[in-house]
Amino acid sequence: MNPADWRTYLVTQASLSGGRSTEEVVRAAIDGGVDVVQLREKDTSARERYELGCGLRGLTERAGVDLIVNDRIDIAEAVGAEGVHLGQSDLPVSVARDLLGSEATIGCSTSTVAEAERAEAEGADYLGVGAVYVTESKAVPEENSGIGPERVREIAEVVSIPIVGIGGITAENAPEVVEAGASSVAVISEIAAAEDPAGATEALSEAVRDGESRA
Amino acid sequence: MNPADWRTYLVTQASLSGGRSTEEVVRAAIDGGVDVVQLREKDTSARERYELGCGLRGLTERAGVDLIVNDRIDIAEAVGAEGVHLGQSDLPVSVARDLLGSEATIGCSTSTVAEAERAEAEGADYLGVGAVYVTESKAVPEENSGIGPERVREIAEVVSIPIVGIGGITAENAPEVVEAGASSVAVISEIAAAEDPAGATEALSEAVRDGESRA
Repeated sequence: MNPADWRTYLVTQASLSGGRSTEEVVRAAIDGGVDVVQLREKDTSARERYELGCGLRGLTERAGVDLIVNDRIDIAEAVGAEGVHLGQSDLPVSVARDLLGSEATIGCSTSTVAEAERAEAEGADYLGVGAVYVTESKAVPEENSGIGPERVREIAEVVSIPIVGIGGITAENAPEVVEAGASSVAVISEIAAAEDPAGATEALSEAVRDGESRA
Repeated sequence: MNPADWRTYLVTQASLSGGRSTEEVVRAAIDGGVDVVQLREKDTSARERYELGCGLRGLTERAGVDLIVNDRIDIAEAVGAEGVHLGQSDLPVSVARDLLGSEATIGCSTSTVAEAERAEAEGADYLGVGAVYVTESKAVPEENSGIGPERVREIAEVVSIPIVGIGGITAENAPEVVEAGASSVAVISEIAAAEDPAGATEALSEAVRDGESRA
């Protein structure tokens, strides 16, 4: 799928899934219409992430949902994921492109206009921009927590690749993030910790559509 | 270089290098005749390891010394290393072989006869066997600390790929590890924390030769 067509993006983190397994959360998110799943699971070994990734590849492939691996290009290749998501202290986007080729989807976490411009110049296919709101998931360094929809707008004005808003996003605030220039939103807890993860995914997707109609 | 021809194998760890940089330690080890350098540096980000790896690639290539990257197949590919060294909780040897191809050098950490047999069957080019002696470097899980030269001997009797002894090895005990069946020895502190890392490398190489003559 083209990242510009994504609406809802689930980042997996078993420790924030309220006792459910990551597979269970992903299965429910797929039922709710999620577009892309990022295998994150920072606290697990490479072997565990690889094994989990193989399982998620089966689930996502059958559903036509994209699978992206956080940080590890080797695990992305090994499980046959669509691509990789890189933070500012991971391997450079240009290195990922050399290793994965032109067809792979490469995303990059950015919090500032300068980082966003550099990621685009290096060949990123999409940007993860955040943390838009204050969040406790630690997916984003603390100093970049709560950059707000205004920063999303500033970045959207200077880059032409799709923006995925991330960090503290809910069905309530998603419309304003999309209105500011994001084309999709990424969440951990909003889906993974929800009582009804499938319903939470649907609500989030609806909120993105709502934002699109206002943008 | 064929792993069977290695004698001394340096594993890098800046935190055990007595305030010296990893480049400085590697340069001295090369002066002392080290055969292979493994980029480990578990406490650094992927970006830092990649940048350090690019620097070490320059140093080792000029000297005809092999460069191996711990755990990360992607960093090994990105810096043009000879191969990768995998622990029991890293990606499987068979996955590394698929990603890196037949020419790459793939090593695997093993502590038991069963692990050693499995690694050889999966296509490893050499085994890191240890920790032979008790060590504080934490390169090996504590329960496998101090397996002794006898375990090296048991493993050497059942595998045909080269064995690199690792864990608490010094110029004093290296001969008995080689006598037991290792063809080379890997160290962190013995070189990195030595007053004279080049001299320590030479002494270690001499100790391996001594063990060869006894074996």
